[in-house]
Amino acid sequence: LEKVKPRKARWSVRASEVSKKTFNPIRALVDSMKLEPNPNKPMIALSIGDPTVFGNLPTDDEVTIAMKNAIDSGKYNGYAPAVGYQTSRDVIAKFYSCSEAPLEAKDVILTSGCSQAIELCLAVLANPGHNILVPRPGFSLYKTLALSMGIEVKLYNLLPEKSWEIDLKHLESLIDDKTACIIVNNPSNPCGSVFSKAHLKKIIAVAARQCVPILADEIYGDMVFGERKYHAMAPLSTTVPIMSCGGLAKRWLVPGWRMGWILIHDRKDIFGKEIREGLVSLSQRILGPCTIVQGALEQIIHRTPQEFYQNTISFLKSNADLCYTALSTVPGLRPVRPDGAMYLMVGIDMKSFPEFQSDVHFTERLISEQSVFCLPATCFEYPNYFRIVVTVPEDLMLEACNRIREFCEQHYQGQEGSQDLECDK
Amino acid sequence: LEKVKPRKARWSVRASEVSKKTFNPIRALVDSMKLEPNPNKPMIALSIGDPTVFGNLPTDDEVTIAMKNAIDSGKYNGYAPAVGYQTSRDVIAKFYSCSEAPLEAKDVILTSGCSQAIELCLAVLANPGHNILVPRPGFSLYKTLALSMGIEVKLYNLLPEKSWEIDLKHLESLIDDKTACIIVNNPSNPCGSVFSKAHLKKIIAVAARQCVPILADEIYGDMVFGERKYHAMAPLSTTVPIMSCGGLAKRWLVPGWRMGWILIHDRKDIFGKEIREGLVSLSQRILGPCTIVQGALEQIIHRTPQEFYQNTISFLKSNADLCYTALSTVPGLRPVRPDGAMYLMVGIDMKSFPEFQSDVHFTERLISEQSVFCLPATCFEYPNYFRIVVTVPEDLMLEACNRIREFCEQHYQGQEGSQDLECDK
Ligand SMILES: Cc1ncc(COP(=O)(O)O)c(C=O)c1O
Ligand SMILES: Cc1ncc(COP(=O)(O)O)c(C=O)c1O
Repeated sequence: LEKVKPRKARWSVRASEVSKKTFNPIRALVDSMKLEPNPNKPMIALSIGDPTVFGNLPTDDEVTIAMKNAIDSGKYNGYAPAVGYQTSRDVIAKFYSCSEAPLEAKDVILTSGCSQAIELCLAVLANPGHNILVPRPGFSLYKTLALSMGIEVKLYNLLPEKSWEIDLKHLESLIDDKTACIIVNNPSNPCGSVFSKAHLKKIIAVAARQCVPILADEIYGDMVFGERKYHAMAPLSTTVPIMSCGGLAKRWLVPGWRMGWILIHDRKDIFGKEIREGLVSLSQRILGPCTIVQGALEQIIHRTPQEFYQNTISFLKSNADLCYTALSTVPGLRPVRPDGAMYLMVGIDMKSFPEFQSDVHFTERLISEQSVFCLPATCFEYPNYFRIVVTVPEDLMLEACNRIREFCEQHYQGQEGSQDLECDK
Repeated sequence: LEKVKPRKARWSVRASEVSKKTFNPIRALVDSMKLEPNPNKPMIALSIGDPTVFGNLPTDDEVTIAMKNAIDSGKYNGYAPAVGYQTSRDVIAKFYSCSEAPLEAKDVILTSGCSQAIELCLAVLANPGHNILVPRPGFSLYKTLALSMGIEVKLYNLLPEKSWEIDLKHLESLIDDKTACIIVNNPSNPCGSVFSKAHLKKIIAVAARQCVPILADEIYGDMVFGERKYHAMAPLSTTVPIMSCGGLAKRWLVPGWRMGWILIHDRKDIFGKEIREGLVSLSQRILGPCTIVQGALEQIIHRTPQEFYQNTISFLKSNADLCYTALSTVPGLRPVRPDGAMYLMVGIDMKSFPEFQSDVHFTERLISEQSVFCLPATCFEYPNYFRIVVTVPEDLMLEACNRIREFCEQHYQGQEGSQDLECDK
């Protein structure tokens, strides 16, 4: 009847290229791993970067009270501006502002978790065909996001023997005229490392010399142990424009709430209006984070007692020390002492474990024999290591370390008496 | 010292193409409008699709209690799976499941608002160079998202004289071998129209004949007036695969909470594993909505009393009737009676208002003279109309209608006695 040219004789709906390029290496690897624990030992998962899973690290009461107050006020049910309420952005601006790197509400964009903060920064800074510099080992989301946007990823090396400092020459050698930004993650997932002021200044010097902006992933900011001091990057830079990404997830122990932010530091007006407007446009696609959490921000930031932060850090430090100490004397392992965040990387002397082909194989067998689950660092582009999350209760931490020792002792085939292990990476 | 080739002699950081292509027409138009109200009359904004702004439409107490319970439980602070908690997805699946279109948790993806639901659907279905079919007039986000992804937008006509039914021949004529999906928005923003079962079946027949999936934006689902019945699309289709997007924003009056969902209806397995996996991959980029709202979903869905929904609808209907009746006798205007949602479109007989060049000009002057702010329908690709939001308190609705009448009477230059207006569009 109608002269309509049919589109297709039959159905064929294919998933887009973007969805196929959106690849989560941790998910893919973990899904492909054999995860059959030893039925005689209860599973201890040291694999998940979620401090809330064991129930031993609740957020502070002031944080939950702030949320309930925000709900009761009835003021935070409507749409907020896409970049967040002005008052909430003001709270974050004041909290992170300092004389060397002042911030105002206009410099803050609230996002759905630090993940969306990173996504927006990459989306505004890079075109397809551009590249970004990403730490190896490093958090896998950078690559997942970049590749899904058609942005190339260049991995710069971190040096385990230098407490995971950046190999600055390597970093600088990778920069070319298509480099859109350098991602610096400090304190680090998966390393638990914390950069010194001097090292941070050297990184900034590279960026300044090469005229490349920095994306500072500072989601673990201030989560540093003992005498160590945390330095945000922005106050150390006078020229290099920096986007600092952060959020409530780690320091306030509420990762599910999806509250993140971008702090725009641009004292020489290099990002300028264009980048700021680009970020605003991009934020309008799906709008910002949940308004209840936005409404609660002021009280969360102002009323969370100092001792809450301190308690979290003491607990993490004590567990990290315990784990580091226990594993330092295990044959064939070389843990790297962490200074912050919630992780610890452990090198495997693969030559001493000829049974295992890889860190993936090693960690699989650790599950099937000892029911201890650690992520193989292949997830972080760093084979022959594995990552331990130190947020578990102390008794489980100890028990896990004992089981790892037993496992290694059973499989170790290194030279007699040689405890002075060199990692083959 | 170092033989490093500098990248650039000086700084040059430009915003990406994607950020420049991400264009919000409402924002752009409103920002360029003269918005100087008459100082002698308080402003009445009938422009914002946020039912919470006037405070007369609070959410139900059960909804806020559900949130506080979720907070107090302490169970919803950690990361949820990227697609949402299984239990929360199950609640939504059961709520929307029916025998003709059964749903399980695996068919539900929780998102950061209906906006992200639409974003994920488009991102998984279309590649750059593909096209999508979008209603005119229609919600501007479809185009904003599509263009930012390099997807072409083809506008199909809605017919005001047929209560905004789709011009089906026009719709079908636009389909080609690059058409990734048809977006159907029912009930409609900006029209307030509600499609009959018969009309929905005809739309589905076009999609079936042409083998094109449907993206049903059903965020205003069930928000229909009086005798009208709302029909979701999925139960009316046996073959066409449908992604239905919805959320808490409108029916539960909490748009700021950013809780949306995708319901995947695919009884003939046409989307198949590939599209489902694509959606899961895409959801891992920034993870799902706030876990507190996810945790509250079960109680929100099960405990919100029927009368809450009914009260909202009666209020909207009564305001819509009042506004429609008041404006039907205004010279030069032709309101189209709405059957649902929260909006009303009003045609302007531009020939009768020779002073004004466009709907934009008309609405600007309505602000400067009468302090009434309506969105010009140019925002929705539909010149010579304006949109009224009917969520304002009744007295303001009445006052706004009176002022609109006064404004039109002052500027009307139509033929004497001729109230039988034809709109010039
Ligand atoms: C280094 C790093 N950046 C960003 C994120 C993402 O944070 P969010 O959960 O706020 O999206 C994580 C989460 O583990 C992380 O480890
Ligand atoms: C038709 C339509 N779809 C989707 C949305 C977006 O909903 P949300 O606020 O849940 O992202 C809106 C908001 O106004 C809308 O009118």
